[in-house]
Amino acid sequence: MHRGYQLKKKKIINDPVYGFISIPDGLVFSLIEHPWFQRLRYIKQLGMTHLVYPGALHTRFHHALGAMHLMCLAIDTLRNKGHEISEEEEQAVAIAILLHDIGHGPFSHALEETIVKGISHEDISTLLMTKLNQQYEGKLETAISIFEGTYHKGFLHELVSGQLDMDRMDYLNRDSFFTGVSEGVISFDRIIKMLDVVNGHIAVEEKGIYSIEKFIIARRLMYWQVYLHKTVVSAELLLAKILKRARQLSLEKKALFATPALGHFLNDPVTKHDFMASDVHINAFVNLDDSDIMAAIKVWENCDDFILSTLCKMLMQRNLYHVEITIDAPEGKFIDQLNKRARQQLPVNDEQLDYFVFTDTIRNSAYRPGEDSIHILMKNGKLQDIAQASDNSNFNSLSRTVKKYITCYSKSLF
Amino acid sequence: MHRGYQLKKKKIINDPVYGFISIPDGLVFSLIEHPWFQRLRYIKQLGMTHLVYPGALHTRFHHALGAMHLMCLAIDTLRNKGHEISEEEEQAVAIAILLHDIGHGPFSHALEETIVKGISHEDISTLLMTKLNQQYEGKLETAISIFEGTYHKGFLHELVSGQLDMDRMDYLNRDSFFTGVSEGVISFDRIIKMLDVVNGHIAVEEKGIYSIEKFIIARRLMYWQVYLHKTVVSAELLLAKILKRARQLSLEKKALFATPALGHFLNDPVTKHDFMASDVHINAFVNLDDSDIMAAIKVWENCDDFILSTLCKMLMQRNLYHVEITIDAPEGKFIDQLNKRARQQLPVNDEQLDYFVFTDTIRNSAYRPGEDSIHILMKNGKLQDIAQASDNSNFNSLSRTVKKYITCYSKSLF
Amino acid sequence: MHRGYQLKKKKIINDPVYGFISIPDGLVFSLIEHPWFQRLRYIKQLGMTHLVYPGALHTRFHHALGAMHLMCLAIDTLRNKGHEISEEEEQAVAIAILLHDIGHGPFSHALEETIVKGISHEDISTLLMTKLNQQYEGKLETAISIFEGTYHKGFLHELVSGQLDMDRMDYLNRDSFFTGVSEGVISFDRIIKMLDVVNGHIAVEEKGIYSIEKFIIARRLMYWQVYLHKTVVSAELLLAKILKRARQLSLEKKALFATPALGHFLNDPVTKHDFMASDVHINAFVNLDDSDIMAAIKVWENCDDFILSTLCKMLMQRNLYHVEITIDAPEGKFIDQLNKRARQQLPVNDEQLDYFVFTDTIRNSAYRPGEDSIHILMKNGKLQDIAQASDNSNFNSLSRTVKKYITCYSKSLF
Amino acid sequence: MHRGYQLKKKKIINDPVYGFISIPDGLVFSLIEHPWFQRLRYIKQLGMTHLVYPGALHTRFHHALGAMHLMCLAIDTLRNKGHEISEEEEQAVAIAILLHDIGHGPFSHALEETIVKGISHEDISTLLMTKLNQQYEGKLETAISIFEGTYHKGFLHELVSGQLDMDRMDYLNRDSFFTGVSEGVISFDRIIKMLDVVNGHIAVEEKGIYSIEKFIIARRLMYWQVYLHKTVVSAELLLAKILKRARQLSLEKKALFATPALGHFLNDPVTKHDFMASDVHINAFVNLDDSDIMAAIKVWENCDDFILSTLCKMLMQRNLYHVEITIDAPEGKFIDQLNKRARQQLPVNDEQLDYFVFTDTIRNSAYRPGEDSIHILMKNGKLQDIAQASDNSNFNSLSRTVKKYITCYSKSLF
Repeated sequence: MHRGYQLKKKKIINDPVYGFISIPDGLVFSLIEHPWFQRLRYIKQLGMTHLVYPGALHTRFHHALGAMHLMCLAIDTLRNKGHEISEEEEQAVAIAILLHDIGHGPFSHALEETIVKGISHEDISTLLMTKLNQQYEGKLETAISIFEGTYHKGFLHELVSGQLDMDRMDYLNRDSFFTGVSEGVISFDRIIKMLDVVNGHIAVEEKGIYSIEKFIIARRLMYWQVYLHKTVVSAELLLAKILKRARQLSLEKKALFATPALGHFLNDPVTKHDFMASDVHINAFVNLDDSDIMAAIKVWENCDDFILSTLCKMLMQRNLYHVEITIDAPEGKFIDQLNKRARQQLPVNDEQLDYFVFTDTIRNSAYRPGEDSIHILMKNGKLQDIAQASDNSNFNSLSRTVKKYITCYSKSLF
Repeated sequence: MHRGYQLKKKKIINDPVYGFISIPDGLVFSLIEHPWFQRLRYIKQLGMTHLVYPGALHTRFHHALGAMHLMCLAIDTLRNKGHEISEEEEQAVAIAILLHDIGHGPFSHALEETIVKGISHEDISTLLMTKLNQQYEGKLETAISIFEGTYHKGFLHELVSGQLDMDRMDYLNRDSFFTGVSEGVISFDRIIKMLDVVNGHIAVEEKGIYSIEKFIIARRLMYWQVYLHKTVVSAELLLAKILKRARQLSLEKKALFATPALGHFLNDPVTKHDFMASDVHINAFVNLDDSDIMAAIKVWENCDDFILSTLCKMLMQRNLYHVEITIDAPEGKFIDQLNKRARQQLPVNDEQLDYFVFTDTIRNSAYRPGEDSIHILMKNGKLQDIAQASDNSNFNSLSRTVKKYITCYSKSLF
Repeated sequence: MHRGYQLKKKKIINDPVYGFISIPDGLVFSLIEHPWFQRLRYIKQLGMTHLVYPGALHTRFHHALGAMHLMCLAIDTLRNKGHEISEEEEQAVAIAILLHDIGHGPFSHALEETIVKGISHEDISTLLMTKLNQQYEGKLETAISIFEGTYHKGFLHELVSGQLDMDRMDYLNRDSFFTGVSEGVISFDRIIKMLDVVNGHIAVEEKGIYSIEKFIIARRLMYWQVYLHKTVVSAELLLAKILKRARQLSLEKKALFATPALGHFLNDPVTKHDFMASDVHINAFVNLDDSDIMAAIKVWENCDDFILSTLCKMLMQRNLYHVEITIDAPEGKFIDQLNKRARQQLPVNDEQLDYFVFTDTIRNSAYRPGEDSIHILMKNGKLQDIAQASDNSNFNSLSRTVKKYITCYSKSLF
Repeated sequence: MHRGYQLKKKKIINDPVYGFISIPDGLVFSLIEHPWFQRLRYIKQLGMTHLVYPGALHTRFHHALGAMHLMCLAIDTLRNKGHEISEEEEQAVAIAILLHDIGHGPFSHALEETIVKGISHEDISTLLMTKLNQQYEGKLETAISIFEGTYHKGFLHELVSGQLDMDRMDYLNRDSFFTGVSEGVISFDRIIKMLDVVNGHIAVEEKGIYSIEKFIIARRLMYWQVYLHKTVVSAELLLAKILKRARQLSLEKKALFATPALGHFLNDPVTKHDFMASDVHINAFVNLDDSDIMAAIKVWENCDDFILSTLCKMLMQRNLYHVEITIDAPEGKFIDQLNKRARQQLPVNDEQLDYFVFTDTIRNSAYRPGEDSIHILMKNGKLQDIAQASDNSNFNSLSRTVKKYITCYSKSLF
């Protein structure tokens, strides 16, 4: 299967965000054709966000290609500025970014808190890359060391994973494009053209400083307006509650409709140790995508468990939790009152109340100064943290993590 | 459930194509919230086209909203030109376009040729609208008569269904936007501003003539470049073959994994008469979406029928049929040779050969002059068919239907 | 000339920024056709900025039309939210924004500091509007009172001139579009849809808060990246020095090439009192546009005054001043050194040194809280200043005026 | 002045059309800084078209840079496909396209028919390139031979000047962008990626065929909608009449206001032979730009020649000729009637009638098959003319030159 990796002609893929994405070489192309990568076609980047922004159906497949495209542009820029990057390194860093999210499952956040609890998508990415490296007879060695941050040219890792990496750059572009939320638009082409390497680390030319500010602010606005949007949060919490309930029922040996792959994780708890130890779990995992979850939820709408069927109907009919977001923690009295209503109106016991009434917190941190901060290469040749270099003293506040409280309850309670 | 239909405040929905879509009134909003309409969120407008254009994941839900948005713009323009359109008519025409595709199932073309054979999505649209009209106590009467072309103001029907209707206008915009194929870009805002009503029919002001030409040519190019793209055709034919095989096995009483809704149509042939006669079928149908099909196909990859498992693997791994498109019918000798190879290499009998080798035709007709042709309102006040009004004598050839032959075969044969 | 003002059909004008701009009525159309408004076709919005951003050639004519377009959208939104705005008020506020910049001359900033010193473009706008009101027999009465802020519905004035007015909204859009600086992109359509009127003043719905933040930040970034861009500042200061020198020579009775309109202001000092008192000045002024200045400068390249010819050559060959922008005032020693060089190298006396070496300051204030601040209509029905309503404590710093020092000198000195 | 041509760092220029344009090397940068190239900043690409499309103010400077940018992309593509192009050739072809329009004066069409009659901008381009080659000590040798078509790699010339050259590609993009006429949008990035070289000539891969069709059709639509738009034609003919009248009066020794450069050409007829023989003419020519013409016209509004002042007022107040465009030649009777009216109403003699009443023709030819036709590289390896390769038989009609008649007369006559 993995023969020569010579591309007869450059493959190009249409992308509404960038116009075209070129596949740089045959090994990369072969990895894109691999079933483990193809499955990302069926996993949406933003989960249930499309319930608020109906265009937000783009997939992790497209995002990974987009990030790779930006990586090629970045490498080009750095070479033009005289930094030596070998063809092998170029290929490796392209592969590292291409595969950085390969371990994502469907609706990752909900999944990771329920049926694959304790196993992060980062763990799974590493596992899958290791296995691919075996299949490709060691050809992914450099890519993996760049991904893990052990490669001697640290700036390559920073392009894959840092505060100004190609992952963020693409997801801001892409999420903004497909949601139609123009607050997230960034000047990615300008930022990339301003990148440089100083002392082995990524830096940005001083005249790119305003584009960086815009990038950080755009990220923050995208958090409030999309990623932490009240209704988006509501939908994702609902999905997590559905999976939690389904898991609970499964452990109680109730038979629930599920595809084999979903059933694998629903019925038996898998620890991280199990997962890493035996191929049976990863083989099930790579068969899991959005359709397994959605197909099951539609069937569960009609199951005979009141809680599960109610929650599933709420999701499918877009009758989501009511969510309140507050600066201060909600008052205990208010929660008590909600719980009281729930107890009165719904056939649930006290332990089950939190399927219908619960609280949580969300956090938004636009920029973290410190270790891996964004460095500006000043015209005098010195490096400065963006938070210092900017005349915008609000960088201090952008660095502050904003925490908010959310209170969720079923709309039927009022 | 269907109370007042007063909207407290105008709802707006983000749309990357038009910026924002406003929901005009409470009845329309209530219809959008109806589970039958919400289900369109899970049915992609372009089926498997995303295998070629990875951005093409937009849904029939979004398309219906977009077409409604254009309808509101068109009504606005016509009113500004002095044509009387009552509020009731405005609401009705908005509903008519909103619901025009409500009867679509997942992957309609493949479905309609296999498991819901003989029942078109138009039939189902009419059925669902009739039922909605009952649920809404007759409030959809006018919308239905506009949709069916019996309303006395013919131009309203033409805006819903004609050679220059809001359906086409939106799908060209939207498909072009999400595929990234700029060949389909049209000046919809200019075209809409040029619309007028003459003798009860839609006409276009003479100075809009070049925008109309561009519209017709854009449509033709979108056919070749997207809708009839070789690989798109290949994927859709593969999906149809999968469903055909699954149906065949089901009729032979082989147990296949399926969600209840899919199982309903897989296991028992339903005639159009059955479908219309009993609610059991439509109730199953409205539970069917893309996830039922995709979840099943992934399971079928591992079933023990060679044909079904082979075809499903081909789809999921994007190892599609090789397709040749030719002006002339393929030579019999060539087909014979392909069949011979298939017979030698694959464990299939003669009747099963056409799962791996087959021919078909595709057609592209950019513009049909005649009855419902596009009329240009010349500056001298006369109407002319666009084919006459244009100095572009190629309209004659755009009117010609281009037919091409396709030959498909499994890549494993070579 | 000013007959009926009935428009036979809606005029539309192509605009790459918004697609189309519709002229709302006949009086507005007649004003657009007026020679005083047509002259704005020949006055660039951003003066010499095109030396840095070659696309920035858009005119005050196009900006005024664009702002009027946004005004129509805003009025539409407010009416849809139930605020009564009469047809007469709609026309008046459209005229007010259309004419808000009618008093601008070519390269206003440079001009106002030299040959029309002491007379602001605001003064001239008021003068021209008054004269137009006479020509149009009082039909501009309401427009003028809205413009001046004396009309009883204060929110109409705020749409013309406030921290969230249609002027700013259009110039950010337009300047960003034509410079290609995406940092200035704002969600004008979203902001406008979020506008409301509370207690007679413009307010923004709470859910528009992030769009407002983005708007304020975009404005700040556009200042640094475009309006106060080092090279832009350099070019505008050079132009001002040219006009200052030409004026100086003229007062010394040196004959300089000039069109009659330019000669009028070059040769004789005109006070504000003179300007307002006699039509001769305004009649010359409305004949002045960018071409008078540029044509003269090209001729002056070859004049026999060393200073004037040198400065003109610098401009035409884009050999601008070297500019340094600093947080702290430049050291006196450095300026002395520059002056010393200038004295040695150039045939100029001490009074003339500042044509080649000088300092200045620039200021950037993104948002001013207080009297005319931006109000957010919170979901609880209360109004809050955006600086309070935002969780972004950096609003405090955005409110701070940033002052910087610039040091300019002829590149030939080094 | 022409020192090393090493660029310390890559210069980039903002371009709203392509985002950024990079200057490839120091020689190119030096040419861009040359005063003869800088003057193109002050010459609009589309002359008086902004009277119809107010955004169309882009200059020949920006177009030349844009075409150079596309050239760099094209060279990149061809190299990636294995065609050897040396660094020297890359530089030369970039220079050839950069300078291809260097000989344009302001409002070229009007100018070439009046005050620089008999000397085409192509002649002047060649003259200026030759002189630059001397100034740059022979460094432009290869660029000139590519420009003139004598270089042995013919495909390089075709990229500069052919039916699919970078000049057309950029002007369609740019004119479409700045006018806001979306009919002209082309998939330039896709077309460029499809370019190849076969037998020493440019060819297009078969799968790019629809993009080429769209390109040709877009060009045709841009002709009708922009370049030959009735009002655009009217304005340009008016400008030509103004220059013709001014020239006539100058020859009659009437003193007219003019800048020295304009005066040079206004007052004395210059033959092509004169122009080529003595530097005095070219030195005047390179000082001429749009501002000389516009500044003069504004002054001439008040001159005492009835014809000249009337025509100038018509232009400045946008009170243009009425234009009728017809398929058939206008009837003599109609022209006679117009002339009769003109004779009655205007103080002009018979020879002067054609300042107010005249006829002309316009031509639109979208595609010329034959010698330099567009070749498609079919999948079978053969070359075909696009007119054959397309299934669109309308290529025959696109090849047809459409000729139309125009009749112009002063609106005051009716």
